[in-house]
Amino acid sequence: MTKRTEPMAMEHVISPKSLALIGASEDYAKFGGRILHHVLEHGYEGQIYPINPKRDTVLGLTCYPSVAELPEPADLALVAVPAKALETTVEACGAAGIGACVIITAQLGEFSAEGAALEQRLVEIARSHNMRLIGPNCMGMIVPQANLALSSTPTLRYAGEMRKGGVAFVSQSGAMMGTLFLQSHDHGVGLSGMVSIGNQADLELCDFLEGFIADPKTKVICLYIEGLKSPERFRDLCARAHAAGKPILAVKAGRTDAGSHLAQSHTASLAGSFSAFETMCRECGVMLMDDPDAMIMAAGVLSANPMPKAPRTGIICASGGGAAIMADQMELRDLPAGAFAEITRDRLAQDYPASHANNPLDLGGHKGGLEFGIFERAIEAVHEDPETGVTVYVMTPQPMMPQTLDHIIALWQRQDKPVVLVLNLSRFGAELRDQAFAAGIPFLTRTDDLYRVLELYRNLLAAAPRMQAPERPADLVAPKIAGQGFLTEPEAKAILSDYGVPVPSATLTGTVEDALSAAAVCGYPVVLKGVVADVVHKSDLGLVKVGLGDEAALRQAYAEVEAAITAAAPGAPVQIDVQQMIAPGVELIVGLTHEPGFGPQLVLGAGGIHVELLCDVVQRSAPVSPSEVREMLEALRIWPLLDGARGQAPMAVDAACDAIARLSWLGPDLGDRLVDFEVNPFRITETGAYALDGRGTLKGA
Amino acid sequence: MTKRTEPMAMEHVISPKSLALIGASEDYAKFGGRILHHVLEHGYEGQIYPINPKRDTVLGLTCYPSVAELPEPADLALVAVPAKALETTVEACGAAGIGACVIITAQLGEFSAEGAALEQRLVEIARSHNMRLIGPNCMGMIVPQANLALSSTPTLRYAGEMRKGGVAFVSQSGAMMGTLFLQSHDHGVGLSGMVSIGNQADLELCDFLEGFIADPKTKVICLYIEGLKSPERFRDLCARAHAAGKPILAVKAGRTDAGSHLAQSHTASLAGSFSAFETMCRECGVMLMDDPDAMIMAAGVLSANPMPKAPRTGIICASGGGAAIMADQMELRDLPAGAFAEITRDRLAQDYPASHANNPLDLGGHKGGLEFGIFERAIEAVHEDPETGVTVYVMTPQPMMPQTLDHIIALWQRQDKPVVLVLNLSRFGAELRDQAFAAGIPFLTRTDDLYRVLELYRNLLAAAPRMQAPERPADLVAPKIAGQGFLTEPEAKAILSDYGVPVPSATLTGTVEDALSAAAVCGYPVVLKGVVADVVHKSDLGLVKVGLGDEAALRQAYAEVEAAITAAAPGAPVQIDVQQMIAPGVELIVGLTHEPGFGPQLVLGAGGIHVELLCDVVQRSAPVSPSEVREMLEALRIWPLLDGARGQAPMAVDAACDAIARLSWLGPDLGDRLVDFEVNPFRITETGAYALDGRGTLKGA
Repeated sequence: MTKRTEPMAMEHVISPKSLALIGASEDYAKFGGRILHHVLEHGYEGQIYPINPKRDTVLGLTCYPSVAELPEPADLALVAVPAKALETTVEACGAAGIGACVIITAQLGEFSAEGAALEQRLVEIARSHNMRLIGPNCMGMIVPQANLALSSTPTLRYAGEMRKGGVAFVSQSGAMMGTLFLQSHDHGVGLSGMVSIGNQADLELCDFLEGFIADPKTKVICLYIEGLKSPERFRDLCARAHAAGKPILAVKAGRTDAGSHLAQSHTASLAGSFSAFETMCRECGVMLMDDPDAMIMAAGVLSANPMPKAPRTGIICASGGGAAIMADQMELRDLPAGAFAEITRDRLAQDYPASHANNPLDLGGHKGGLEFGIFERAIEAVHEDPETGVTVYVMTPQPMMPQTLDHIIALWQRQDKPVVLVLNLSRFGAELRDQAFAAGIPFLTRTDDLYRVLELYRNLLAAAPRMQAPERPADLVAPKIAGQGFLTEPEAKAILSDYGVPVPSATLTGTVEDALSAAAVCGYPVVLKGVVADVVHKSDLGLVKVGLGDEAALRQAYAEVEAAITAAAPGAPVQIDVQQMIAPGVELIVGLTHEPGFGPQLVLGAGGIHVELLCDVVQRSAPVSPSEVREMLEALRIWPLLDGARGQAPMAVDAACDAIARLSWLGPDLGDRLVDFEVNPFRITETGAYALDGRGTLKGA
Repeated sequence: MTKRTEPMAMEHVISPKSLALIGASEDYAKFGGRILHHVLEHGYEGQIYPINPKRDTVLGLTCYPSVAELPEPADLALVAVPAKALETTVEACGAAGIGACVIITAQLGEFSAEGAALEQRLVEIARSHNMRLIGPNCMGMIVPQANLALSSTPTLRYAGEMRKGGVAFVSQSGAMMGTLFLQSHDHGVGLSGMVSIGNQADLELCDFLEGFIADPKTKVICLYIEGLKSPERFRDLCARAHAAGKPILAVKAGRTDAGSHLAQSHTASLAGSFSAFETMCRECGVMLMDDPDAMIMAAGVLSANPMPKAPRTGIICASGGGAAIMADQMELRDLPAGAFAEITRDRLAQDYPASHANNPLDLGGHKGGLEFGIFERAIEAVHEDPETGVTVYVMTPQPMMPQTLDHIIALWQRQDKPVVLVLNLSRFGAELRDQAFAAGIPFLTRTDDLYRVLELYRNLLAAAPRMQAPERPADLVAPKIAGQGFLTEPEAKAILSDYGVPVPSATLTGTVEDALSAAAVCGYPVVLKGVVADVVHKSDLGLVKVGLGDEAALRQAYAEVEAAITAAAPGAPVQIDVQQMIAPGVELIVGLTHEPGFGPQLVLGAGGIHVELLCDVVQRSAPVSPSEVREMLEALRIWPLLDGARGQAPMAVDAACDAIARLSWLGPDLGDRLVDFEVNPFRITETGAYALDGRGTLKGA
């Protein structure tokens, strides 16, 4: 028996040199039999060891009674035994020096607490042998680049040949791996590998992500995610993928409560907060998509083309109606098409009236009689248009389809610009699909998917992942933050002051005489605010009085706020803040939360009534730099108000950026003590930026 | 020669008893030959008359030298001759008493002024004979219910059998008819008929729409529209279709400027204003869609199912991951799924753990071993759920697919609830598609299309087309509206007053002394507004001063406005309005325009800075009733401000509804004299509603 001294490298997990198939038989109806059939049918070239104590040979291969009796420790063992036999099987594999077990067996951690406990014991057994586990509750792996069809999905019988290429897929759903295997094959998408990770008891999504980033044959990585076990590691890996020029596309379930519930019942993983996940994806250049089929098709297009040099797209359609609808949809989706360059219009003028030499081009709108030269010249002119970075051909039923397709394929082979082919021909186009498949060009079949690809190109060109954290302001020492539970306004403002965020001068008073003295110091007009613990919407309770211009006004307001305090919290001490009144301006809401796994999150939005009416909010991981705050502000719909809309004076945006950037450090400084912290309103005037109110909830230090 | 005394009825145009095919031959490469082949291959049962002076027979049919020599006047003649022969051919057809000519010939009105003139002459010739024209620049008709394949589209050779059913399609694009014929056939959609209307020189979209509304075999009508020739007629027909229970689905090009340009070059029709079109569709229950392929598939589902009794949907998926993503997407798209009823959860509990008995149901998430009874029970339980009105089955690769599909088909045959089938199986599912096709159940293949169908069901259930125009307020006599060109504020306000829309009391003054007297009458505080023709944004030029509390403030402001008038329009007379100052409130913009063909349009939106920031706007055809104004206001995002958000006092919404409804009559009263008329701001306070400003542009009476 060989004792493994360290876990097998991921490259060998993805591309094993030998397989032990426990329970191998001829029977296609059983997991062990079916997988052996698939492995053989797809021409795996490594060593195959069927394990079955009742047989000498299976399908012509020498059979072994147990993993202990193999001539060498296999890299991978396939385990599809009933739950009650799992512990002894995994123990036997570990003892035999197997590199990794792929556990198909389901109804474990995703079903019950007992199942989860068994999973945990399997992990302990495996780790004691330096053996890795994939699954349980998974459907194995399909690795075309290793000719490895180690999966029970019957869809493997559909394709005589697994198409090799640059797309990898890591899936938290086994069934989805099968579906996407079909979709990839049907759309000419070449794969490097697909892995169903199941319950991720040991090896998890990030392990395979790391493996495919390192894999030289993988160019684009697709992920189906229900919940991340380690968001921090995911973030680091995404940055690494970006640096390596490998786009990551992801579909995540659990976007809404409804989906989250199902994702949880599906593989028992916590879905986490979607907006924190979305923020992370944006920050590290991961492209979130809404449809898994569309994702694998898009990945096929990306992997088979160079990156575009410009986002604008030149489009050729076989139908004028199709072209008109595409022009609309491109504009609605903010996808750049735009007019062709002068030189292109000149080239098209030979065959098309000036009114028809548009982008999208209706190929059939030519002058005179039909001849292939017209198509040839038009397609080439569009592809060579200097203004556009992507060429799209949407083929609906048209004359001379095979010739036209050959011409498109030749343009694609130039690899000087992405060529996106849409064969919108339904089953009518079966021969054209075969023609495209044989040439190796991937294709789409619906314009829905085309728009998704063009959105990806646009977003990939615009993606600018943050490569380093912002620098802490030199004068901002991490203050000791006392307190826990709900913070009163004065407590919150004390923290804000410590962080260098301007707050209006304020004095806490208990009598109207104190208030009058305080007002005399800060100058009229003043604001009064009743301080009551646990009250969020102070204005609604009459606890706030603004614009008090003189002593008489202050006296009257003081009495009213006193009464409001008594009404809101009978018996509470009278504590009334006398504050300097800040000039009018634009109001924001600035919030910080801590999302487990994702760290502190900064949220900026339109404040006041706009919070609820506009839902005009942007989110980033904290901390942020002042220039990042400016980008956030520019992304708000109310930005024109800050920038001086309609001839108004611009607001003190620099002061706001500085203050908000400082405040964002409260996130990392508090760490997981932070529940939430909110400044609303944060007012930006023509001359400064001020936290007019603050609240928060902290856990104990 | 038979002289027609009146034009042939549309039912005979759609379902002709005899055809004359001009230029018929055996040659599939030529239009005349290809169409004859298609007509014969698809088993047309009427009389076929090939016309070819050089031949005695074609494909076994007796050939005639000209239409003049036919034994009877054919209902339809197919004309695909070169442009220069069109006039004589059409004249000959007319003289022979042909009912209608289908003119395939292109490069006419859509290409040049000469082509347009020729088209016009053809129409005159045809009308002189009471003959109708379809086209030119069309691709004919495919009418499965009449076994008529009168089209040159090569896609007709794809389908051995045209599938008969309840979906009609009227298309302004010929190529799109071919594409949708394929898509319909590939998705099991049964058709009543498809017509390519080309340049609509004579028969236009509304004629065929009317024909299919009257056709008893048509249940759902699809339209591809580039521009409407007669929006009024379209509106009437849509109301008729709604009354007949026949949904109309439409895709319209020309939504944006880009698409509009292409639509124009495509069939030379004016696209009209999209928002007026959209408004009309909403008002008469037409379902606007974004994708023609999706439209024909959705129509297939609608035509093969009863209307749902409730909008909520029960969903069964073959994949847990798929179910999780669907739950998300349903919620994001505001499509109701919701939890199953208690009784359904109880039924599911037999086979599924409580954590898995969710909607969408992951069929594979059952307890214990696999057996078909589990699937059978689960599918039936979901279909019989009392809370849901629609059943959806999304089939991805799964065990026991043919059996499962049979079970779904049996449920669909009950016709007690719509059953929407998605075969997301790519080409892997070829046999299942055949199985569904044979049973007659239409199916989708992508969830994108499923969401569209569910949106249609939701919107069809909610659609409430306006069946009668609002009543004119009894006290609103149609005032004589003088003036033309740009209206000054006082002119606009005079009109508003005539319509009973409250405006602040105002006095036009030329000297500060007049202004002081006026202010003394209406009471301080007052507002001053400099009146300068052609100035839209008065505030930007310093022409407006508000909140003038006393004589001194008025004097100073008057001087400033005087200076601003001189700066804005040197030499202009000083005209300054002294106005009553209205209390603060919520500001709207209220606009009226006249859209040719669509009539007067009322636009309501958030006013002030919100106009530009929020794009919070609703549109309806004018006039409207006060209760319709309320519906419009409730549809605005700022509605909570009017309704009393966050404990604020509610605004005088009834007064606003009354005033805006009155104002809406200005639209029909002005008719096409109206260019535009705008009140901004229209302020709603706690006690009233006031037009604070008004402008407009009118054409001469």
